[in-house]
Amino acid sequence: MHAPSNNAGPLAGLRVLDLSRFIAGPHCAMQLGDLGADVVKVERTGTGDDTRAFEPQVNGESLYFLVFNRNKRGITLNLRDPRAQDILRRLIAQADVLIENFRPGTMEKMGCGWDELHALNPRLIMARISGYGQLGPLATEPCFDAIAQAATGLMELTGPADGPPTVAGTFVVDYCTALYAAIGVTAALEQRHRSGVGQLVDVSLVGSAMSLLVTAIPAQAMLGQATSRVGNRDRFTAPGDVYRARDGKWVFLLSGSDALFPRIASVMERNDLLSDPRFSTLKDRMVNRAAIESIVAAWVAQHDGDEIVSRARAAEIPGAVVSTIGDVVRNPHWREAEHIVTVKHRTAGEYPMHGLPIRMSDTPASIRDASPTLGEHTEEVFREWLGMGPEQVATLRSEGIL
Amino acid sequence: MHAPSNNAGPLAGLRVLDLSRFIAGPHCAMQLGDLGADVVKVERTGTGDDTRAFEPQVNGESLYFLVFNRNKRGITLNLRDPRAQDILRRLIAQADVLIENFRPGTMEKMGCGWDELHALNPRLIMARISGYGQLGPLATEPCFDAIAQAATGLMELTGPADGPPTVAGTFVVDYCTALYAAIGVTAALEQRHRSGVGQLVDVSLVGSAMSLLVTAIPAQAMLGQATSRVGNRDRFTAPGDVYRARDGKWVFLLSGSDALFPRIASVMERNDLLSDPRFSTLKDRMVNRAAIESIVAAWVAQHDGDEIVSRARAAEIPGAVVSTIGDVVRNPHWREAEHIVTVKHRTAGEYPMHGLPIRMSDTPASIRDASPTLGEHTEEVFREWLGMGPEQVATLRSEGIL
Repeated sequence: MHAPSNNAGPLAGLRVLDLSRFIAGPHCAMQLGDLGADVVKVERTGTGDDTRAFEPQVNGESLYFLVFNRNKRGITLNLRDPRAQDILRRLIAQADVLIENFRPGTMEKMGCGWDELHALNPRLIMARISGYGQLGPLATEPCFDAIAQAATGLMELTGPADGPPTVAGTFVVDYCTALYAAIGVTAALEQRHRSGVGQLVDVSLVGSAMSLLVTAIPAQAMLGQATSRVGNRDRFTAPGDVYRARDGKWVFLLSGSDALFPRIASVMERNDLLSDPRFSTLKDRMVNRAAIESIVAAWVAQHDGDEIVSRARAAEIPGAVVSTIGDVVRNPHWREAEHIVTVKHRTAGEYPMHGLPIRMSDTPASIRDASPTLGEHTEEVFREWLGMGPEQVATLRSEGIL
Repeated sequence: MHAPSNNAGPLAGLRVLDLSRFIAGPHCAMQLGDLGADVVKVERTGTGDDTRAFEPQVNGESLYFLVFNRNKRGITLNLRDPRAQDILRRLIAQADVLIENFRPGTMEKMGCGWDELHALNPRLIMARISGYGQLGPLATEPCFDAIAQAATGLMELTGPADGPPTVAGTFVVDYCTALYAAIGVTAALEQRHRSGVGQLVDVSLVGSAMSLLVTAIPAQAMLGQATSRVGNRDRFTAPGDVYRARDGKWVFLLSGSDALFPRIASVMERNDLLSDPRFSTLKDRMVNRAAIESIVAAWVAQHDGDEIVSRARAAEIPGAVVSTIGDVVRNPHWREAEHIVTVKHRTAGEYPMHGLPIRMSDTPASIRDASPTLGEHTEEVFREWLGMGPEQVATLRSEGIL
């Protein structure tokens, strides 16, 4: 694995109970685990997290589950059983942090609302992740990443200008919500050093999505400017787009500012463009956008993608070949830089996944373990956190509580 | 403004020096400011952060600058002058956190490499944000959000299946990098309570982008499955897409699982589809995707968007009208829920922007101030942090140091 086993990250010694499913909760808890916390994931007895069933699978393990649950231990609880809810409260009494993304009201139905839990464990920090927040008229509406992208205008901003609104290729809202929640949890840890008590952190998909709109909200409200999708064209300068190279590769080039335009003209050996009145200023190029973009596109089409990018970079023009995932996985640089790392799972075997986004000099984050198999650490956690022996665990299991 | 002025967030009392520009650094520092830290933004004498010049502007203030720099005080320093670099070190000696996103090597040239700063102020936490990280062969290559999207495959995942790779409509990599950096900073605060010393946090655009690829890396490496763009079609089930309604609105509907498909068939009054062998199972519907999507699309086209969504929701089918930014700004719910808030700026006046993504019960985040005008708080900060009088500040200013 990635770091020496005696390494302890900045959150080492903290106990995190992760009741969450899918992405926004699990990715939040995984950050805390990467940073050294002891994260215990609680899953439904029998089937566990729904994402364990998602395709694709390797040796019966879902890749989806593997990439959102490293550095966690796993236990099961049959949370519909009041006896399991009682055990859950005993675990929460031992935890520093609780993370959940049930539909609002579910924790209350299990006797685990914030007031009860705060009374039970005043030092507890509880992160609640939901679609629309814990309160308000929409709180119990189902919501997930694409709904939040649609409802907040984020989807309206993505895609070709003459095509439909487009969902981002990844779960951008889920990921950002996860990260906001992790910030809230760590900030609450700082506050706990002062007050001695924990607090509730309430993070929503729509609130997170709204934070990703750049200038769209004030531009609309103050200036009546409707921000919408523009494909790959730069919103503010021209030329700037994704172009197709001779070898079929897609190339992203941005050379639209008045500083960059002479460079691309020179690289294309088209200094005549600088005296073409259609392209003299940024304003002119924006008016005659189709013309200048088609000139760049025709030039790119005569060369291979890598050649275009190396010529552009030599002229200090921002550019990149658009990598396929195959390109990314085969590029040895990403492994050398540890942006892709190999993790070893007991049944799935060795698999590559993204590395540690947060690098710390003294107490580094680390990948100490792959994701747990279902209920893998139930005995171990019940012994460590609750002082239970294996017979007690066996009894609970036989009674259908675990 | 949003919260009572005597409110103190979980990071109140912490001093943050923000040297960063554009999004990834400023959005990170803004999170710390929202959570109560005293964030002082240092800008270049004369013109300040480049984004102050970005369009659109209101009363001479850039909306771009306004949305990434609330809750900060502003000072200027002419950092090319060694005397300004000396003052910078004196400020850093008083800071808990330093945030920068210069090209790697720039801080070192100013005599502000990590070793110097750690010796100067052992409690300092320094967050360094860059394209490719502080070390390695690509460290000094220019990189920004779209380059990272292109280089890591994120762009390959977004857009129509038969069209070019597409950049996400927002700066998803910049935003996530900002949030990872903020997590690193707050985790380092926790560690500082144990060790008494700060540390370096190194976060990169490519490392952050790589973390957003869901299962693409292991699916490619282990199974040879190339993840690519699929427009708005759900990757795993059918039907599921963005459809155009009679009134021109776009509607996102997801009804492809075996549980959801009978519901959409019923809502469309097309229960005959359930016995159509082309659509009986998820597998069949994936094979005959074009056929089932065109049936749903034709049905949506006969009704208005809001009607479609209300019928879908009544049947517990996830769906939403794709909001334009105009829809979002006009929807009173977002203001009631404080996902859009009004901030008052001295010269730009009142403007709406996104609210607080992180809600905390005891020590809430708050919006205490709009973004600073250039150098607005120089005297105030120099007095509070360095004990300097106004005459000294005036002298430094006359010498071109501020």
